[in-house]
Amino acid sequence: MTLPTVDQIQQALAQVMDPELGRSIVELGMVRDIQIQEGEVAITLVLTTPACPLRNQIKAQVEAAAEAVPGVKNVSVELGAMSDEERRRALSSKSPASQLNKIGRVVAVISGKGGVGKSSVTALLAASLQRQGYSVGVLDADLTGPSIPRLFGITGPVQGVPLGILPVETRTGIKVISTNLMLPDENMAITWRGSIMSRAIRQFWEDVLWGSLDYLLVDLPPGTSDATLTVMQSLPLDGIVLVTMPQRLATMVVRKTVDMACNMQVPIFGIVENMAYYPCLESGVKHEIFGQSHADEVAQAAGAPILGRLPIDPDLAALGDSGEIEHYEPVEFVQLVEAFTAAVSVLDPASLEPEAAD
Amino acid sequence: MTLPTVDQIQQALAQVMDPELGRSIVELGMVRDIQIQEGEVAITLVLTTPACPLRNQIKAQVEAAAEAVPGVKNVSVELGAMSDEERRRALSSKSPASQLNKIGRVVAVISGKGGVGKSSVTALLAASLQRQGYSVGVLDADLTGPSIPRLFGITGPVQGVPLGILPVETRTGIKVISTNLMLPDENMAITWRGSIMSRAIRQFWEDVLWGSLDYLLVDLPPGTSDATLTVMQSLPLDGIVLVTMPQRLATMVVRKTVDMACNMQVPIFGIVENMAYYPCLESGVKHEIFGQSHADEVAQAAGAPILGRLPIDPDLAALGDSGEIEHYEPVEFVQLVEAFTAAVSVLDPASLEPEAAD
Repeated sequence: MTLPTVDQIQQALAQVMDPELGRSIVELGMVRDIQIQEGEVAITLVLTTPACPLRNQIKAQVEAAAEAVPGVKNVSVELGAMSDEERRRALSSKSPASQLNKIGRVVAVISGKGGVGKSSVTALLAASLQRQGYSVGVLDADLTGPSIPRLFGITGPVQGVPLGILPVETRTGIKVISTNLMLPDENMAITWRGSIMSRAIRQFWEDVLWGSLDYLLVDLPPGTSDATLTVMQSLPLDGIVLVTMPQRLATMVVRKTVDMACNMQVPIFGIVENMAYYPCLESGVKHEIFGQSHADEVAQAAGAPILGRLPIDPDLAALGDSGEIEHYEPVEFVQLVEAFTAAVSVLDPASLEPEAAD
Repeated sequence: MTLPTVDQIQQALAQVMDPELGRSIVELGMVRDIQIQEGEVAITLVLTTPACPLRNQIKAQVEAAAEAVPGVKNVSVELGAMSDEERRRALSSKSPASQLNKIGRVVAVISGKGGVGKSSVTALLAASLQRQGYSVGVLDADLTGPSIPRLFGITGPVQGVPLGILPVETRTGIKVISTNLMLPDENMAITWRGSIMSRAIRQFWEDVLWGSLDYLLVDLPPGTSDATLTVMQSLPLDGIVLVTMPQRLATMVVRKTVDMACNMQVPIFGIVENMAYYPCLESGVKHEIFGQSHADEVAQAAGAPILGRLPIDPDLAALGDSGEIEHYEPVEFVQLVEAFTAAVSVLDPASLEPEAAD
């Protein structure tokens, strides 16, 4: 009886697909090592996220594939996690656009709770970073409730070219991709099931010609289901910014996202408390319309700093509605962006400097 | 050569499953008629929703199944839609709980946009109807961001009995089911993919011992993806209440839900505009914090009346946070509930009368 070779095992494993990414685990670099002794096969497998919910499924498929090779007596699989560099390489995809893109930091803006102002915070953060001389893109992952194009006053349709999809640029040059830039009418509903949404988000990452960006901000929809899972699992996220609001009820839902981020080992750069209070122009009183702040509680659970607290400002709503959010420069945001870039720079201090200050 | 019989065709079609409901199309009553003449088979198929996105898939499977019966020369399939009564029967399921439940009206509260106060409106509507003597249940379909238990101040765990799952009752007797009544800690995240979410929502409908209800209100998450699709396709919805807020951006997203409801031919009972203004106690001024109302625009697009406009009220946020939303009885809500029951009663005026007024 012939003994199996490393090559044969490798070939067998090349047939196993990562269920999330839809690509061969060999191609993704997930098979780190194969050792064979007298037909006993020991495989070291590295996953893109150590808390991958599909780890057991992948492990079982690897075992079955290796066991099917003639001469194999026994298969043992050891699971590990990729290094940041391995992960980035695995998720960078082979699409023509991906090969051309050069993207610095990928940061998701997330809440779990709807209507706390994630999209406004994303847009304001993008505008502030752009003003400071960074080049910025926004990937609108809220496919069924996209707000980003409206806030910036941009419309589609996006252009497709042979190498990929061209994002639409805002008046200050922020590059944006969003389902609302693809629909003939912004009031049309997108009624895709989760699996199709996941594919669309991956396409926004892989097939869009982002070019060279210092920051790609990802605006996530509410909830901890498909869109959020896909962004956390299949985009090379550096970390997230968590948006909350005072209401205790909202805080509870936001804490679910903290739980998810911890489980999936995604770093949290900081917390933004939105709609913290409403300053009445007539009386000068600061009304805590949605109750007292619970930002400290969220920050503690997340083990992350509070980047800023933003008031309810009718001017912001008005500028957002008229597509002029880039004209809004609240004092609170200057400090917020400083705190944000400081939190991100901890990752690798020398890596990001704006090329030219405005 | 023997000619095929109606029985044979029926048996072949019994193997075809509705992809959404996971049950045989014969069992669901979707095969209304089979005619055979000299091997030419004509099948009349009725769908649960005329705009069923899977209609072509089902049709193709039916054709293939019938063509595989020996002696069949040709198959033609005519598509139609179920009557309300047929639909209700098809979706009522054969589970033990479903057999025992007797549910009057099923109404979803929906927005598309997050954070506009869907859950508060659902809870207030439930409390008002209950006060008027109706028996009311709330199915919290916002699985990843469930707010309903907190608003009512109820906690789990829910009890499972041989016949199904017992909902938890609020202090005034509203029956509630929610993922947050099933988790050991309300801050835990549910990170299910869409298909599992859809199954969970169907289970909330089929396996919960609701008993006898006049109204079952379904609180939907933001977005027009899995949860909303499942509720519109696999629950016997009588119609929806649409919650909006003034911001133009929010209005745009809400209009996507109008588009979806129209496509899926789900009746819209009316519009609730939440957070319409903030009455400053000190100055007496009504602040339109989120801009001017666009409720008229939504109502016109939806072809439905405005049921009411609700102010921003810190008392509501406080009572919601402390789980006492049933103690909140704003004047605006009395008219709103009247308008709601009037809109619903158009369906069948004699069908619903409260058994005893409080």
